[in-house]
Amino acid sequence: MSGDHGPSELVPGVARAAQALDGVRFQLHGDQDVLVKELARCPVLAGRVEVRHAERVIAMDEKPAQALRRGKGTSMWGAVEAVKTGEAGVAVSAGNTGALMAISKLILRMGADLDRPPLVASLPNDKGVTTFLDVGANVDCDAARLVEFAILGEAFHRAAHGVAKPSVGLLNVGSEDVKGHQEVREAHRILRDGHLDLEYRGFVEGDDLTRGVVDVIVTDGFTGNVALKTAEGAVRFIRDELRVALTSSPLARLGALLASGGLRRFRERLSSPPAAPLLGLNGLVLKCHGGASGRDFAQAVRAAADLARSDFAAEIERNMRKLPAALAESVPPAAEGAP
Amino acid sequence: MSGDHGPSELVPGVARAAQALDGVRFQLHGDQDVLVKELARCPVLAGRVEVRHAERVIAMDEKPAQALRRGKGTSMWGAVEAVKTGEAGVAVSAGNTGALMAISKLILRMGADLDRPPLVASLPNDKGVTTFLDVGANVDCDAARLVEFAILGEAFHRAAHGVAKPSVGLLNVGSEDVKGHQEVREAHRILRDGHLDLEYRGFVEGDDLTRGVVDVIVTDGFTGNVALKTAEGAVRFIRDELRVALTSSPLARLGALLASGGLRRFRERLSSPPAAPLLGLNGLVLKCHGGASGRDFAQAVRAAADLARSDFAAEIERNMRKLPAALAESVPPAAEGAP
Repeated sequence: MSGDHGPSELVPGVARAAQALDGVRFQLHGDQDVLVKELARCPVLAGRVEVRHAERVIAMDEKPAQALRRGKGTSMWGAVEAVKTGEAGVAVSAGNTGALMAISKLILRMGADLDRPPLVASLPNDKGVTTFLDVGANVDCDAARLVEFAILGEAFHRAAHGVAKPSVGLLNVGSEDVKGHQEVREAHRILRDGHLDLEYRGFVEGDDLTRGVVDVIVTDGFTGNVALKTAEGAVRFIRDELRVALTSSPLARLGALLASGGLRRFRERLSSPPAAPLLGLNGLVLKCHGGASGRDFAQAVRAAADLARSDFAAEIERNMRKLPAALAESVPPAAEGAP
Repeated sequence: MSGDHGPSELVPGVARAAQALDGVRFQLHGDQDVLVKELARCPVLAGRVEVRHAERVIAMDEKPAQALRRGKGTSMWGAVEAVKTGEAGVAVSAGNTGALMAISKLILRMGADLDRPPLVASLPNDKGVTTFLDVGANVDCDAARLVEFAILGEAFHRAAHGVAKPSVGLLNVGSEDVKGHQEVREAHRILRDGHLDLEYRGFVEGDDLTRGVVDVIVTDGFTGNVALKTAEGAVRFIRDELRVALTSSPLARLGALLASGGLRRFRERLSSPPAAPLLGLNGLVLKCHGGASGRDFAQAVRAAADLARSDFAAEIERNMRKLPAALAESVPPAAEGAP
């Protein structure tokens, strides 16, 4: 029922995903009448879909606290509950992000020692995709939290992109050990010396996000949010300027027309993937962006299925169990102290 | 003597600047023989230049501590010393950034209550230029320091861009008062309620850097450095991808050729200005990037002259005098405390 477009766009999206997902079955949570009507237009889903009726839908502008209080019986609540009971391997929603996070936390509980699931962004780089977290959920982060992001992001990158041993970098303002603030230097020591099962490569800088020197880049939710939005703003600005450049004269317009195939592939490369997981929960939940088209939602559903069929959760748990020892081992140099 | 190219590129740069700067005189610090030889090729500088001989030049890879110990008698030291004695209104260097910062601090002293001059970036936005600081000098920043950046950045923006009353925003992860970490919320209160002579517009986000909603955007040196490098990385990535897109076929290459005028102006719009001031010192010093061409250096010298002829220093001092009262007035709500 979720997102700006609702079932008329998203049910065909599920149908599109189903064609590429042999053996996967679907639960649709929402208004039964509406969903059955949409399903009648998607013969490929016949026999693979179960409709779970929900009386209410959480509005896109509802506050998380309100969603928690009045969420029971909504389509979103039902979908997350199905993950909790094991009926579903993963839940996908294009609905209200804050509400989805709050309801998922309440129902599934955090597995890691985090207050909130970090938000994950996927950025194109010279070699493929950079997994970047936290892009906004946890504004204040101590060293332990940054290390948890590394564990979660690494497992996600492997599951999502099929990289056997993703490399991990910690975002900083320079590459030497003495650079940056206390939290980032301490997280660096834990990741380097803590015997976690991670391919840790040390500090990276902002421009490495698009360079592909490592697969996963970790930072606090404040820095990550600013960096992601700065990158998005730069892309938006450049697109607008490019449009001006390519329509500045009849000759330039003709040039743009001749180059349009290449320019279209260029735009596709820059558009971010439609879905991101809520990490660190005892269960899988994917957030698809609110404006998702059927095509976007299909991509999100396929990503969700890949994640559900991977060893994602077990790999995270294995590293999380090593974390207390790693934290205890890391004794910060006496000279540094809190800022 | 400074920069990757030295006097053969920079002296003609000064000559180029001199043509646009009536009544401005120049001191060149460095090896007399070399400089006199270069000056012979620049008749426009005749009678407007004084050469100050220096035995030594600080190398581009010299450590700041080393530069401080052995800096006396170098061309960089002489140029900054001339600002201290009042012989020069402003110093411009394309040399070693760390050394320039250390020598400037030692000779001129900080006027503000800062450890180091914040680094300033100038980014293109939809309406003109965003002045963005600190992009790397002060990694740990309390609220008072963020407010000082606002005062310095505002005065710089007015002097550099001729905007009578530049607007100021504080970088955060959302626009509501409760968003962000403690330092940024406290700085917000001081800027909003502290009776400083600033056009403060509240919180802005990463994508506002290229949008032009405010003229000056303030953040700590960690976040600012990451954001700036992320934007630079995004621009670099997009340029590379665009090059691929526009050379992917003979038709696309023809298109790129036809659109080349527009694309050239597009590239110029994206390239960052060649110089940035070291703010907060008792005296004016501009850092020009190391790889500066003569044309870049000319632009830096012109920017330096604009700054020296403005009321820059007096305007900063006026606001800085109001700062202690503004800090004392801002009583943080008891519930918030340190994170």
